[in-house]
Amino acid sequence: MKRIYYSIIILSFIGLFMPYNLNAQTQKEITTDPLPSWNQTGTKQTIINYVTKVTKEGSADFIPEEDRIATFDNDGTLWAEQPIVQIEFVFYQIAKLLKEKPELAQQQPYKAVAEKDEAYLKKMGTAELITLVNAAQANRTSTEFQQQVKEFFANFKYPKRNTKLTQIRYQPQLELLQYLQQNGFKVFICTGGTVDFVRVISKEFYGIEPERVIGSTNKYIYKDSADVNDLYLTSEVISLNDKQTKPANILLNIGKRPVLACGNEGGGGDVYMLRYSQGSSYPNLQLLVNHNDKEREYEYYEKPDVSLTMAKEHKWTVISIKDDWKTVFSPQ
Amino acid sequence: MKRIYYSIIILSFIGLFMPYNLNAQTQKEITTDPLPSWNQTGTKQTIINYVTKVTKEGSADFIPEEDRIATFDNDGTLWAEQPIVQIEFVFYQIAKLLKEKPELAQQQPYKAVAEKDEAYLKKMGTAELITLVNAAQANRTSTEFQQQVKEFFANFKYPKRNTKLTQIRYQPQLELLQYLQQNGFKVFICTGGTVDFVRVISKEFYGIEPERVIGSTNKYIYKDSADVNDLYLTSEVISLNDKQTKPANILLNIGKRPVLACGNEGGGGDVYMLRYSQGSSYPNLQLLVNHNDKEREYEYYEKPDVSLTMAKEHKWTVISIKDDWKTVFSPQ
Repeated sequence: MKRIYYSIIILSFIGLFMPYNLNAQTQKEITTDPLPSWNQTGTKQTIINYVTKVTKEGSADFIPEEDRIATFDNDGTLWAEQPIVQIEFVFYQIAKLLKEKPELAQQQPYKAVAEKDEAYLKKMGTAELITLVNAAQANRTSTEFQQQVKEFFANFKYPKRNTKLTQIRYQPQLELLQYLQQNGFKVFICTGGTVDFVRVISKEFYGIEPERVIGSTNKYIYKDSADVNDLYLTSEVISLNDKQTKPANILLNIGKRPVLACGNEGGGGDVYMLRYSQGSSYPNLQLLVNHNDKEREYEYYEKPDVSLTMAKEHKWTVISIKDDWKTVFSPQ
Repeated sequence: MKRIYYSIIILSFIGLFMPYNLNAQTQKEITTDPLPSWNQTGTKQTIINYVTKVTKEGSADFIPEEDRIATFDNDGTLWAEQPIVQIEFVFYQIAKLLKEKPELAQQQPYKAVAEKDEAYLKKMGTAELITLVNAAQANRTSTEFQQQVKEFFANFKYPKRNTKLTQIRYQPQLELLQYLQQNGFKVFICTGGTVDFVRVISKEFYGIEPERVIGSTNKYIYKDSADVNDLYLTSEVISLNDKQTKPANILLNIGKRPVLACGNEGGGGDVYMLRYSQGSSYPNLQLLVNHNDKEREYEYYEKPDVSLTMAKEHKWTVISIKDDWKTVFSPQ
């Protein structure tokens, strides 16, 4: 009896002090817009409606947290792809190599890189491209490679914009990634870039742990000797994570079908990832970024425009950068 | 002033009621053994000392949660491997197939399965084994395959023991998995079995999400048509997750080096996973299960015993089933 009495007194006291803070917090939850860099368009409403319905316990649309799998492309979906960052990394590495071995600049395809011969670089064949990629990325330990990628991200400025690479991230997408994670989604990156490259910055750039990055892969060879205990990155490609290979790698990495998938038009690489998520038995959502904003970002389309055509046919939600995004790039 | 006064009163009241519960909880934390099925041996102490030191903030040995990566082999490490469960699955599937197509039983290697001709099965070549594995596992959608695996786990009894497959899990290891996860470790399975197979039960059997299973992989082909939106499992092997390939697949899947790795002697498949973890810049721990308990489990050794030899050379912690485990199998 005495205990109950004391409890009532305590609860009353707590009641005296807590309401102000509690109300402030509730108020904040109601009025805080989870996607402030998105305009108040149908696209934003579609996203919020979807997240609201699948996270509402007891609802027929409810998805348990463990099955709230979302997959996002990276180039052109989370950051700009004009030019593609990893290709810039290859040129950056070659430039460093040419400083060490200037004699290489006498022979192609190194000569073209040294002379910034864009005409040559654009028409060079696969064999020469692979020569450059290997010189830039292969035949080193994973530890060395990670350090080289870090150095690139610390120093490189994005062409024409002269910004740090954090500033070519799309601000509205950063908010979307955070909004989904706060709502219990497991968010994965599913990129055409190589996993080794993107993982170095996935946490810092997107709040996504390295183990949630799916991408193109090269073979590693393990070496264990008196001098070395590490994996060597080779030039042998295991998987090019694009088109139909994206669903396959999603299943191989996650073991589940995504309920939300987001890609972009431009290269047609994401359409099967979106289709795959559409086969989920749960309510699902497909998002396709449309690069239609010449003023603030870039304007480019596929020829023929497979992605936008499929978006229409399969009722995907198209994100118009021009109309749906209040801000395009991250200020920081 | 009034506020401070009220606060003091509240704190005093809380003080009156809380000590009993708080003490009870602290008491429980101190006296609850996280590894009750482990005997009080040096092995158990090594594990507890390691976890304690690397989770102690401010200590020189502290590892941030995001880098507390632990990888466990499955067959012979988390559950019994005499016989290997996935090989039993192949025979189970072939038996079902022979019921549907009894005429197959006239030809090898199906005949040997139908007649339980162990001599033939033991000496059959790789080509015939692959024929059986493909008939059991390949050329079906991932959805169909998952259903078939579920059906197998629901019905199959482990040979000679006549127990459900949950009951060939090692109880001390289930406690270790839980103990590590409670201490902020991200625990991954790194198995020679195929990812598609082990993922079906990883959550239920081990509390490990499917995306934290690394294993052998076959190629998938994505099909999107009016009839089907799914991935087809093919017979083409991408990766056999064993020996030097384990470190490579760990890096490809996680992007980080484990700080704790646990495997078993028997096939020599885990030694490079253990060596790889030993190259971590963080304090690290290597555990190797020794199958030396003929009475309660099985007794078997490699010839030559590479794993135990390397354990000695590299100062790994050997788990003696006979001496270190109070109980071997999960009762449920």
